[in-house]
Amino acid sequence: MPYRQDIELCRAETIGGAGVSEAALSAELAALAPALDRLRAACDAGALPALTIAGRTDDLAAITETAARLADHCADVLVLGTGGSALAGRCFTALGREHAGPRLHFFDSVDPDGFEDALGGIDLAGAGLLIISKSGATAETLALAFALLPRLADARGAQALAETCAVITGPPEPGGADSPLRALAAEMGLAVLDHAPAIGGRFAAFANVGLLPASLAGIPPQEVRAGARAVLDTVMGEAKAADIAPALGAALTVAIARERGLTQNVMMPYPARLAPFAHWHRQLWAESLGKDAGASTPIAAQGTADQHSQLQLWLDGPADKLFTLIFGRARGTGPSIAPPAAAGGGADWLRGRRMGDLMAASQAATRDALAAQGRPVRVIEVARADGRTLGALMMHFMVETILAGDLLGVDPFGQPAVEAGKARARETLAAMAAEPAAAKGCPKG
Amino acid sequence: MPYRQDIELCRAETIGGAGVSEAALSAELAALAPALDRLRAACDAGALPALTIAGRTDDLAAITETAARLADHCADVLVLGTGGSALAGRCFTALGREHAGPRLHFFDSVDPDGFEDALGGIDLAGAGLLIISKSGATAETLALAFALLPRLADARGAQALAETCAVITGPPEPGGADSPLRALAAEMGLAVLDHAPAIGGRFAAFANVGLLPASLAGIPPQEVRAGARAVLDTVMGEAKAADIAPALGAALTVAIARERGLTQNVMMPYPARLAPFAHWHRQLWAESLGKDAGASTPIAAQGTADQHSQLQLWLDGPADKLFTLIFGRARGTGPSIAPPAAAGGGADWLRGRRMGDLMAASQAATRDALAAQGRPVRVIEVARADGRTLGALMMHFMVETILAGDLLGVDPFGQPAVEAGKARARETLAAMAAEPAAAKGCPKG
Repeated sequence: MPYRQDIELCRAETIGGAGVSEAALSAELAALAPALDRLRAACDAGALPALTIAGRTDDLAAITETAARLADHCADVLVLGTGGSALAGRCFTALGREHAGPRLHFFDSVDPDGFEDALGGIDLAGAGLLIISKSGATAETLALAFALLPRLADARGAQALAETCAVITGPPEPGGADSPLRALAAEMGLAVLDHAPAIGGRFAAFANVGLLPASLAGIPPQEVRAGARAVLDTVMGEAKAADIAPALGAALTVAIARERGLTQNVMMPYPARLAPFAHWHRQLWAESLGKDAGASTPIAAQGTADQHSQLQLWLDGPADKLFTLIFGRARGTGPSIAPPAAAGGGADWLRGRRMGDLMAASQAATRDALAAQGRPVRVIEVARADGRTLGALMMHFMVETILAGDLLGVDPFGQPAVEAGKARARETLAAMAAEPAAAKGCPKG
Repeated sequence: MPYRQDIELCRAETIGGAGVSEAALSAELAALAPALDRLRAACDAGALPALTIAGRTDDLAAITETAARLADHCADVLVLGTGGSALAGRCFTALGREHAGPRLHFFDSVDPDGFEDALGGIDLAGAGLLIISKSGATAETLALAFALLPRLADARGAQALAETCAVITGPPEPGGADSPLRALAAEMGLAVLDHAPAIGGRFAAFANVGLLPASLAGIPPQEVRAGARAVLDTVMGEAKAADIAPALGAALTVAIARERGLTQNVMMPYPARLAPFAHWHRQLWAESLGKDAGASTPIAAQGTADQHSQLQLWLDGPADKLFTLIFGRARGTGPSIAPPAAAGGGADWLRGRRMGDLMAASQAATRDALAAQGRPVRVIEVARADGRTLGALMMHFMVETILAGDLLGVDPFGQPAVEAGKARARETLAAMAAEPAAAKGCPKG
């Protein structure tokens, strides 16, 4: 297993009154037995493809071939997508910084200045597009595609677009019309990979939504799925909830929130390559469980930087947070950080040390400072920040989120309130079109 | 004034039960009268240089001359600093993306992989360093400096370092020894700008800590200070609290948290160039007020992306958040996002629109969706995301934070718990040195 979870510093027996009691944790673990049975039955029945897709191999050729084609023709690939269409791809891209393939750039800002800033450093004559939208009608993604395709056609020639662009979008409903994105792709001859209709965007990390960017970034999709499968196998096996890491995580998270009134759920990776993972988790948790006033608020943080910006609040502010720290094995690695003679003796505590020693010391110091203050800390230790580890972590937190939803009585799929917000933005835009032309110059928000 | 604050959608009279009552808001505003008098007296007495430095001009030449020297010799400047030493600089740099000067890169990760990833795209033969640490003993900053200086000396020659590097650090205590960073700079002949001893890192945006990176990024320091002064002038004038934007903000924030039990404080800018500002504010609020269980938790978000990752939770999850949305004037600006004919009719609501129209519609839709759900929303509208606006926003939130501290009975200066955490990390490192050599290969944490 590419990671190890340790919840000892969340227990009341260890850290005192803010920790979870054995009784409360046991109660949630007991309630998880039927929830686990439901999850297993759903997987066996093929009703949870977001998870069981980790066992497929038949769809990988289309992913790697598309990635190879884009890599052949592009020095830069602009990924257009927002929320679940982009966050998994960002996570994989952060793992592959030393990869020799195309550079990936994620576009989700529709601020005109931000759009031009993001384009600033990119030579469109060597660029391609990967456009991701499950519905094929996401306003931001369409806007970015409609703004960029003419520029790309100018820079590379319209006929090159078929070689340099790809689209991931859902098939039309039976009997329904193609979405704007799908119709556009068909008309322009752009390759389309189907977004699995039964997998929501934030659960699509193991589908082409996550694995095509992964492949472009040099992260082998089969390794991601192998890591995911390793975790899913433990879930599908015979073990009881307490011995299955994501089930224990779900029980802990729900039990401690209920028993101690914790309202916030901080995720802080120390390995820099896992920094985007905290943002992926933030959406997964918020959008899956933020219903019926059910869920704690997920908060993304980053070690060691947030020791300098947030630790004061975490230690001495309200005791309303559960902390999940992701530790890397850094000790003894990295460049020397020994002070030169010119620095005098004031930094002697760095003498003989490597950069990884400082990261290891910071990890331990944060964990111990929080626990000493009675703040609950879950530690997840990873051996390496690679595709297999990330696949395992993503599967862990997908299962943890689904099981927590079961305990909370919340359906983790769907996002009804967001859909209402999107409809409101579309209506506002449609209303703009109906306004008299004289109003167009109006500078108001 | 380069921004406009509107709190109507925070009032119970407007949004119902989750809003602040007129009585509660008035009570905090009344309590602010003596707090404002104390703040004005402190400024008049020179006891709050973090704010009154906005009125200085005598220190600007040293800042702009140092920036010009680095710009002459460097295509890239690596800024070493963490927390308050970096966040203001990141904010200014995001404003200046189209500037022709050196590219700025902020280094605060001591993960060995993250360090090498960040270095990957930079040619050290054209690079310089700006090293920022008030204490001159911050572990991460020293580690990065000790790791990078030998590489830079290899790439450019040791004698070039005096032209390509600069240091901002505090002077020694009276009778005390130089910090390691200061001793290093003296020995190597690196230019040192003094970090004002009476200005804490997170309040140092208008000092050289913020303005040297600003100047490197093409943002005129005098414009930043002019924006800050415009806000400070309203504070120092005769107006009553309700007519001073940051005082009204402080009263609102404290009153609504007390009356409605709100525990979280979300800051979401829509202009992409203001995205780092939410992180700057996050540290300012957390580290200043996260004491004695006093403060709400600040949360940084980004429009429009977080509509897709967080809005579900914000609308339908726990009603425990105050939202501050920063709106840009985007309508009618940016590239056309009109759907091409090939997209069919499914995106007709984008016909005739520009990208800025979509941002404007998204801003309005989020505001209205939150208010319709009874969630309190403060709107701050900016005309342009430039140095003057950012200076004004930073001054607004410094004053708001200081006044909120006064209302909460919390000293907003100092960060005792963080200092304890730093000491713990230093002790862990010192203990590593004392361990037998055989333990060095141990892969644990």
